[in-house]
Amino acid sequence: MNKNHYAILMAGGVGSRFWPVSTKAFPKQFHDMLGTGETLIQKTFSRLSKVIPEENIFILTNELYNDLVFKQLPNLTKRQVVLEPALRNTAPCILYASLKIQKENPDALVIVAPSDHWIEDEDTFVKNVQQSFDFCSKHNALMTLGIQPTFPNTGYGYIEYDALSNESIKSVKQFKEKPDYETAKMFLSKGNFLWNAGIFMWHVNSVIDSYRKLQPKLYSLFEEGIDTYNTELEGNFIEENYMKAENISVDNAIMETSNNVFVIPAEFDWNDLGTWVSLYDKLDSDHDNNAIINAKSLVSNSKGNIIRTNKGKLVVIDGVNDYIIVDKDEALLIYPKEKEQNIKVVLQSLKQKFGENFE
Amino acid sequence: MNKNHYAILMAGGVGSRFWPVSTKAFPKQFHDMLGTGETLIQKTFSRLSKVIPEENIFILTNELYNDLVFKQLPNLTKRQVVLEPALRNTAPCILYASLKIQKENPDALVIVAPSDHWIEDEDTFVKNVQQSFDFCSKHNALMTLGIQPTFPNTGYGYIEYDALSNESIKSVKQFKEKPDYETAKMFLSKGNFLWNAGIFMWHVNSVIDSYRKLQPKLYSLFEEGIDTYNTELEGNFIEENYMKAENISVDNAIMETSNNVFVIPAEFDWNDLGTWVSLYDKLDSDHDNNAIINAKSLVSNSKGNIIRTNKGKLVVIDGVNDYIIVDKDEALLIYPKEKEQNIKVVLQSLKQKFGENFE
Repeated sequence: MNKNHYAILMAGGVGSRFWPVSTKAFPKQFHDMLGTGETLIQKTFSRLSKVIPEENIFILTNELYNDLVFKQLPNLTKRQVVLEPALRNTAPCILYASLKIQKENPDALVIVAPSDHWIEDEDTFVKNVQQSFDFCSKHNALMTLGIQPTFPNTGYGYIEYDALSNESIKSVKQFKEKPDYETAKMFLSKGNFLWNAGIFMWHVNSVIDSYRKLQPKLYSLFEEGIDTYNTELEGNFIEENYMKAENISVDNAIMETSNNVFVIPAEFDWNDLGTWVSLYDKLDSDHDNNAIINAKSLVSNSKGNIIRTNKGKLVVIDGVNDYIIVDKDEALLIYPKEKEQNIKVVLQSLKQKFGENFE
Repeated sequence: MNKNHYAILMAGGVGSRFWPVSTKAFPKQFHDMLGTGETLIQKTFSRLSKVIPEENIFILTNELYNDLVFKQLPNLTKRQVVLEPALRNTAPCILYASLKIQKENPDALVIVAPSDHWIEDEDTFVKNVQQSFDFCSKHNALMTLGIQPTFPNTGYGYIEYDALSNESIKSVKQFKEKPDYETAKMFLSKGNFLWNAGIFMWHVNSVIDSYRKLQPKLYSLFEEGIDTYNTELEGNFIEENYMKAENISVDNAIMETSNNVFVIPAEFDWNDLGTWVSLYDKLDSDHDNNAIINAKSLVSNSKGNIIRTNKGKLVVIDGVNDYIIVDKDEALLIYPKEKEQNIKVVLQSLKQKFGENFE
């Protein structure tokens, strides 16, 4: 395997729309959301390891999740776990990790990928990543993997590419923020719009050059620590300086304003497992379309539910349709699928009612 | 307090209609079904102790529940706990306990009462028991406490009393088994029918006389052990002979065929807490008629539910009406109130599906 291949696995998110399973103390990526026997971060790590040497896969996460990461990926070394001491959006941590990687290997080709997405067809994923790395090794390019949209989803950003291009790798015209429904429909009808899945690939020098040009303040902040990176002094430097970083996404910071952005339309099925219903779409369900995870169940006169409990819990349900039913030791959620976007609001209401934070 | 007053508290039932809270290993009477801080048997014991000296209250239960009884009523002595070595209906154990009490105190006035009913107005209960004891001390009478019916319930037996009587204690004409709906309506329209709540009062000699006359075989079986009762030899005798006893209720065995049966119409409110819905009627509920026990809850767009969890469990429910929602560590039930009579059938289905007994 190519020793210049690197990955930055983004594993700092909270996934509060998956409450009560996903919580701040134990977020979604550390759960076996699909009931496969592996957590999402374990699945993602194993998928990436088909094209990246395991020792070159870095986990970018919050200090809170250090123990969870080592528990679930026990072969990692400390070098591979990059901890953010403060909650910031993606731009600062990607720059920081990139500088560390560049110092270790100035020829590195890097993929940045979320740790909590579903991709079943791993061979095609590997093929698309390999194509992108090949391109990035020859061009000063910031690449993304774009997902062919299947409906006018208003929950994702979109990538508009050059409609005239016949290449498999296409030049990007614009990044578009989450659109309203009419705009999303227009994007789909045009045919040259893809969903932004937050998967990026580039030569480490290309991305750092972009930060230097487009985010000089952020670049200076982290460049100042370069002598400490990958040494014992790094921790102190980061502890002191990380919180000074602007809270900005990598999309806003460099992708939207760079003119060397390219996209490869993904040839594999993808799901961001962003909500209970998108998870439901990826689960096996019974003849009544009930997807049941972990429970021993007797479900009657009920259709289209997603039911998740602790392993082996007995569940008896009668006459419930299209619900999210999630039970764990401390909390039980019985909620209509069609209102799942409100689960974040529910968490606010719980906080108001009980004066406690249940996230 | 009158040292001749005795009680036999019936605490051997399983209460399977309250699954998953009530199970064979931990039946209803040992649960705090009302969320008051006391279990049903504790409440019943404390109610009886207002008219019976505590040391004269005997608990009649199955060997399985010996530990639960002593845990929940820690001041009991071994003498007060009468264990059935085999599951039998009420006639054998009441005769057995009565013979033990008669041997200890031939002047005993005894009340037999279920351990899992709800009676709020304890003073009136005590008054009615006292009236009955007074009557039984003067007459060779088998007395019952009858409940004024509030609707044509087909789940109880009925007691028909002498419509012409002006006394507060009335002569009973007939015991009626559980009627069909039309018959129950007819009973209510007549005005001289009461629900049989399984509460009996008598002089110990009166009940034993009735057994002798009406159930000579059963009487002989238990009379043969008289020398062993209240001695160390009792256990062996019962272990050897109890299972020979006919499986018959006290109603069938003596009440229905005796001609010295009397009833006092109860002047207190009563509920047998026989099903989730009858329990629901006795619980406080919020402005949407949701009765919530133990849970920390956020219940929206939902009415008429009974919700019970472990203490302090967080429950979020939206858009569910008239349901029984019961959660405990090993099981979760989400079931329409109107189908609650099917819960026993559910237990059969679970057994078939999983090859295990979940009762």
